[in-house]
Amino acid sequence: MGEKIVIVGAVAAGPKAACRTRRLMPDAQISLIDQDNLISYGGCGIPYFVSGDVTDEKELRSTTFNMVRDDYYFKRAKGIEVWTMTKALSIDPKQKLLHVEDVRTMEKDSIPYDKLILATGSRPNILPIPGNDLDGVFTISSLHKAIAIKDCLAKGRVGKAVVIGGGAIGIEMAEAMADLWGVETTIVEFMPQLLPRIIDRTLASMVEHHLKENGITVYTQETARKFEGDDQGKICKVITDKREIETDLVIMAVGVRPRSELAKDAGLLVSSQGGIVVNQRMQTSDPNIYAAGDCVETNNLISGKKAYAPMGSIANRQGRVVADNLAGIPSTFNGVIGSFIMKVFDLSVGSTGLSLDVAKAEGYDAAGALCAQYDRAHFFPNKKNMFLHMVVDRSDKRVLGLQGIGTLGDGLMARINAVAGLLERKAVISDLSNLELPYAPPFSTAIDILNATANVSDNVVSGRVRAIDIEEFISWMDGNETHPDWLVIDLRHPADAARFIEKFPDRWQLMLYDKFREEYEQLPKDKMLILTCNAGAKAYEVQCFLDSVDIKKTVVLPGGLNVIRNLGVDWWPS
Amino acid sequence: MGEKIVIVGAVAAGPKAACRTRRLMPDAQISLIDQDNLISYGGCGIPYFVSGDVTDEKELRSTTFNMVRDDYYFKRAKGIEVWTMTKALSIDPKQKLLHVEDVRTMEKDSIPYDKLILATGSRPNILPIPGNDLDGVFTISSLHKAIAIKDCLAKGRVGKAVVIGGGAIGIEMAEAMADLWGVETTIVEFMPQLLPRIIDRTLASMVEHHLKENGITVYTQETARKFEGDDQGKICKVITDKREIETDLVIMAVGVRPRSELAKDAGLLVSSQGGIVVNQRMQTSDPNIYAAGDCVETNNLISGKKAYAPMGSIANRQGRVVADNLAGIPSTFNGVIGSFIMKVFDLSVGSTGLSLDVAKAEGYDAAGALCAQYDRAHFFPNKKNMFLHMVVDRSDKRVLGLQGIGTLGDGLMARINAVAGLLERKAVISDLSNLELPYAPPFSTAIDILNATANVSDNVVSGRVRAIDIEEFISWMDGNETHPDWLVIDLRHPADAARFIEKFPDRWQLMLYDKFREEYEQLPKDKMLILTCNAGAKAYEVQCFLDSVDIKKTVVLPGGLNVIRNLGVDWWPS
Repeated sequence: MGEKIVIVGAVAAGPKAACRTRRLMPDAQISLIDQDNLISYGGCGIPYFVSGDVTDEKELRSTTFNMVRDDYYFKRAKGIEVWTMTKALSIDPKQKLLHVEDVRTMEKDSIPYDKLILATGSRPNILPIPGNDLDGVFTISSLHKAIAIKDCLAKGRVGKAVVIGGGAIGIEMAEAMADLWGVETTIVEFMPQLLPRIIDRTLASMVEHHLKENGITVYTQETARKFEGDDQGKICKVITDKREIETDLVIMAVGVRPRSELAKDAGLLVSSQGGIVVNQRMQTSDPNIYAAGDCVETNNLISGKKAYAPMGSIANRQGRVVADNLAGIPSTFNGVIGSFIMKVFDLSVGSTGLSLDVAKAEGYDAAGALCAQYDRAHFFPNKKNMFLHMVVDRSDKRVLGLQGIGTLGDGLMARINAVAGLLERKAVISDLSNLELPYAPPFSTAIDILNATANVSDNVVSGRVRAIDIEEFISWMDGNETHPDWLVIDLRHPADAARFIEKFPDRWQLMLYDKFREEYEQLPKDKMLILTCNAGAKAYEVQCFLDSVDIKKTVVLPGGLNVIRNLGVDWWPS
Repeated sequence: MGEKIVIVGAVAAGPKAACRTRRLMPDAQISLIDQDNLISYGGCGIPYFVSGDVTDEKELRSTTFNMVRDDYYFKRAKGIEVWTMTKALSIDPKQKLLHVEDVRTMEKDSIPYDKLILATGSRPNILPIPGNDLDGVFTISSLHKAIAIKDCLAKGRVGKAVVIGGGAIGIEMAEAMADLWGVETTIVEFMPQLLPRIIDRTLASMVEHHLKENGITVYTQETARKFEGDDQGKICKVITDKREIETDLVIMAVGVRPRSELAKDAGLLVSSQGGIVVNQRMQTSDPNIYAAGDCVETNNLISGKKAYAPMGSIANRQGRVVADNLAGIPSTFNGVIGSFIMKVFDLSVGSTGLSLDVAKAEGYDAAGALCAQYDRAHFFPNKKNMFLHMVVDRSDKRVLGLQGIGTLGDGLMARINAVAGLLERKAVISDLSNLELPYAPPFSTAIDILNATANVSDNVVSGRVRAIDIEEFISWMDGNETHPDWLVIDLRHPADAARFIEKFPDRWQLMLYDKFREEYEQLPKDKMLILTCNAGAKAYEVQCFLDSVDIKKTVVLPGGLNVIRNLGVDWWPS
């Protein structure tokens, strides 16, 4: 008989490692152990199951061709022994034994192994506040919780819901409840923006605006203090530092942490953040024990820092690397860059690499460049605006990250994908200016928005464009800050500018784009001129010209008024 | 006054160089010269103008915000002098003079320059066969031709059309005429496949099948010998080496070649293929003369060979590099990789890098790996099949190219984009197995099809999978070749397999995927077993198992029967 391979955890990394090991090592005896009865499911599909896009939880546990991935399937189709409802209690690394317990019968057993793989996953964080155990307060830790939440929704028990946490899962769950089930949903996020550390402020504000347009209430910079229940111990109110919110259901989506007790108790190296420490071959500090998926620590390939990246896609890739190494194929998993995408109602929101906030926090002399452009040729039907934000290092022009928002579809992913593999290869701005993306009018513009964003980044870093911070501009418009004297110069079509000039006669002035080379002398010399157009390009061009005639007190509004319109500012003329 | 910059050619590279130069060098005197009256248009949009997706040719000549890019626009908004209807006759490099002629008045003039930029573009190849000048025989050389073609269509003069050339433009024009105008359209391609050198045979066959499904007749490996006209000198028949085709209109879309006579006559270095030779800064052999766009030769960044890449997107990037260098910014254009995308009715078809045919012709020990998979999570609504074909070098596992077909939309582009920047950086298969693409169920699968295709490539190159060539399989099924003894083992659901077993009782046999580890002994030992499933993965798994029990006379059908279904073979059971 072949080697005894024992795998703890049967959701993503575990089954992946098991199946590839089976293909590479036909003689191996492979056992897959899980304390649950539902295994090998697409956890990232949970919001779509709750929303109803996915009708049956079985679909999340099925193969592409509709076979349910249960004990029977693994045994018969894969030749893999599965022990469900079996909890791993402890490891004896010297004897190479895994001690387990049947969670139904409490019967104990010991399983010998030649190689052990820990794929124990993560557990959701639970807010340490009163009422976190009330009936109706959920985390999204497993398929069982998802089924329970959907059950509540389907039975009409939920009129109002509060999601704590404005990260991806929180937003997906909010959309799931609001969209199909018509639940009055509120997101409470303690950071000043949604999707913190993933995308930067301006794009996050666009996401927030879009959620609000779709009926979701969003409170940022607000902290849940207490969950209150009714007489039956059922949640009825969330109390934050700013208000009380009535609710029938709470979802805590405030992150996850590695499940690594088993590893730690066995004396394996575990990081201070709780991630199992592995080398590039996914080997723990015990060479006979591998680990993969949400339970391990990894590192960020851009910053070089330690990282935690609980993602189903990464778990699958790590599982493959484990299997390769068990079979003697020297594969490595080198780290993560943090690629991300999500659907938010009618938008695609994505990123890869470092956000500007994170890059600055990591000590980079980082700058951001925002670009707004159509996603396909402007003469092509159904073109839509896309927004990209590139993060670069001023010192060496290295590209550190890219984020964006586009209309729902794969166009945004196309740009994120284009950059994903280049970041760890230390690509610089000019690499992206020249990146040869395929072009045809139904797919892109002749100068793709990604090339254009790199061009804008180069202009920013080279000091060829002077821009105003968008938050600052909005703050000026809101009257929150009293900057001595400024004037918006609107380069758009007069019909577009008219409502603004009417509403802000002292602050807004038209300048015809095809006349500015003649009429610039009429501009006030003493005021700070905020040059605005639709998308930012014309404003930059005018700034170049004005510089040449010694009118230098100008700033460009990055991305133009297209950006501001998508932020949903109060002062936007109706 | 600043430097005198004179630019010949005002379609893509020329206007781009002019506008960026204007921003970087506010004092420069910039002149843009073109022998046409219509300038600065999106030539790649011509098929969409002919189809009616773009209503007015002005849209192809407009900015994103609806200003027509004519003489007035360049003069007023850009501060650039435009000389339309002005033909550049010759260059005097010593005197730094450009001699021109007004094509209306025949008046001659000489324009002095400090720096000259040649952006003279390309001209379409014309088949050297009788009747190529008949009324109704067109090339797609300019917006005027496009207007003339659309005019014929709009006036109802075209019931039948023949497109000579099954490259991208030929296919786009065929779709344009057939789709909106209902023209009975035939494509004649002299190579054995459509899109030769861009995508490989199997994918090209899918494109051909899809065109036929949409009513277009396709003849490959067929050569036009003669165009016949009626009494009025109007085209009425195309005579090929195989048949006569009645037609009211012919479009010759058989490639373009550089317009470089001006350069050649001035003594500048021009390649034997006719492309103006430039360095990485787009400088010709005369340091005061730059060239960019369809008129220049470039090089392929993968093969290192000289290349010709007439594309609007590349022309724009080269134009930018010229402007940078005029202004003293040391930008370079290093070469091309050959990224490509197009819409074919309801499909997206794309590629980047070398096709398998080209790679082999270039001397690589190249292999191809085909992968069929859903473009988003299988449990997500509206997922569709995507097909990727990766070309790799067996000797060092370097990835040389990627091609694919997906449903219309940006999903295919997302995978092409992901690879585009990595090819010239000599990425190997494992780089793409591990490439961290963003993942969420509405956008991709946990193991993205690109990662999966790299995994398949690795299995192919490492000899872990033995596959049958798809053309060969079809040939066997067609009975064209008599291979002694073979049997298709169908691992799909019995309901899917039933029609095949009924139709091919001697050639087709079911094996239940969840039983094969027990029932394999019933397989005939003497026959070549062709393992098939939906997408190829299960067949590979079964092959691994059969190898381990010493049944090694097996081959996997790459991409599974999903591929064959999309080829439109005659024998597919209805």
